[in-house]
Amino acid sequence: MEKLSIIKIGGNIIEDDTSLNAFLKLFSNLEGHKILVHGGGKRATHFASKLGIESKMINGRRITDAETLEVITMVYGGLVNKNIVAKLQALQIDAIGLTGADINSIQSEKRPVKEVDFGFVGDVKEIASKSIDKLIKANFTPVFCAITHDRKGQLLNTNADTIASTIAVGMSKIYETTIYYCFELNGVLSDFNDKKSVVKNINTKTYKELLEAKIITDGMIPKIDNCFDALNNGVHQVHIGNTAMLTQKNDNFTTITL
Amino acid sequence: MEKLSIIKIGGNIIEDDTSLNAFLKLFSNLEGHKILVHGGGKRATHFASKLGIESKMINGRRITDAETLEVITMVYGGLVNKNIVAKLQALQIDAIGLTGADINSIQSEKRPVKEVDFGFVGDVKEIASKSIDKLIKANFTPVFCAITHDRKGQLLNTNADTIASTIAVGMSKIYETTIYYCFELNGVLSDFNDKKSVVKNINTKTYKELLEAKIITDGMIPKIDNCFDALNNGVHQVHIGNTAMLTQKNDNFTTITL
Repeated sequence: MEKLSIIKIGGNIIEDDTSLNAFLKLFSNLEGHKILVHGGGKRATHFASKLGIESKMINGRRITDAETLEVITMVYGGLVNKNIVAKLQALQIDAIGLTGADINSIQSEKRPVKEVDFGFVGDVKEIASKSIDKLIKANFTPVFCAITHDRKGQLLNTNADTIASTIAVGMSKIYETTIYYCFELNGVLSDFNDKKSVVKNINTKTYKELLEAKIITDGMIPKIDNCFDALNNGVHQVHIGNTAMLTQKNDNFTTITL
Repeated sequence: MEKLSIIKIGGNIIEDDTSLNAFLKLFSNLEGHKILVHGGGKRATHFASKLGIESKMINGRRITDAETLEVITMVYGGLVNKNIVAKLQALQIDAIGLTGADINSIQSEKRPVKEVDFGFVGDVKEIASKSIDKLIKANFTPVFCAITHDRKGQLLNTNADTIASTIAVGMSKIYETTIYYCFELNGVLSDFNDKKSVVKNINTKTYKELLEAKIITDGMIPKIDNCFDALNNGVHQVHIGNTAMLTQKNDNFTTITL
């Protein structure tokens, strides 16, 4: 089975051109088939505010009314995605920018209204793994932004971490997939005050121990639970750390396996 | 040789959701391989003004400073393009939205500054016809917005008519290509005051006669000259008219051949 890496970057890397350029250089040097998934929340908040649209967040998730969806479509699908594609082309990577609507790659359902009405937010239903693979087989490098669609003509805002893991799960029928979640820290820390205290390996057994010892707490728990979900659904391994983990030289990041 | 239709729509069709939906229905019913090219200038002007950016036009061409390029990337590449893709997916067309940066499909050069500095405006240099054909052969329907890139990381604003004709010329090595330029009128009119007075056929010989008789004048001359340029470079035929020309029933539009 050939290998496929799915790399997810967040808002901080995109916000700053220097860090974006440095990341894209690392990404371009990464060997083998690869897919990039990006957010862009900070840029969206910035443009929404310029357009006089208030950004409402509940539990870190954006409430997406019709106006906000327009901003997200402009910022994620246009500004951020197409600039990343142009920069990758300059690095000789034959990138292709996509939303979930393009080639029907990620179909989702509008989230049902329960206690909170999240608006035009989509929960992923299905990945068109064969269509995505046609692009990979043609030597194109897919760059996904955090937008999906319901195949009834409606675009939907979707969490970028979820997009990365669902693509990885979907593609694991065809490839041995690895997810790289890039964030600010070096990885999962055993001591939150010591940025170098990285837990290098987590598996089902050690995860239980880390939970019992209260080394992994709060917001990190759902993130790692999601990693295990992906691993239980066919993903080979998940790496968590800063972008330096894409280089061969660095081994100071967290690797999660079953 | 298989046939390929390149359909270009302008700002008026996009501006109004009813006319866009009606057009996309016609487009989805069009048989054979097809590529859509769209502008979006009116939407861009609208959002630029909301963001406090003044739109400057010279001879109908937008002066594209850095801020304006951001708006164009957001509106053409994001808002307009991705909504068209989502609407086409709902019509069972496996659309894929592209700028010229995606799969390096349209490489251009920043226009040199002469009397006017157009800013980030690109003149098309090269079409990646083989890469575009990989998408067509995979049964995807490309939807191009009016943005290209210089392959050095810079996106550039490019006239949508030019994109349509250059794609058609580039693809004519592989396909028998036909361009459909959709605009408000039924076609080239022999009497500007009579909207039904369509000149149905123009070729090299009758074009000279129409010019001499001053039936074709002013702004229509460069448009038709561009059509003959495309025909002289391998394009099979060019149709000019309103979107109804995409139906089999209507024959009241202008067809240009050599």
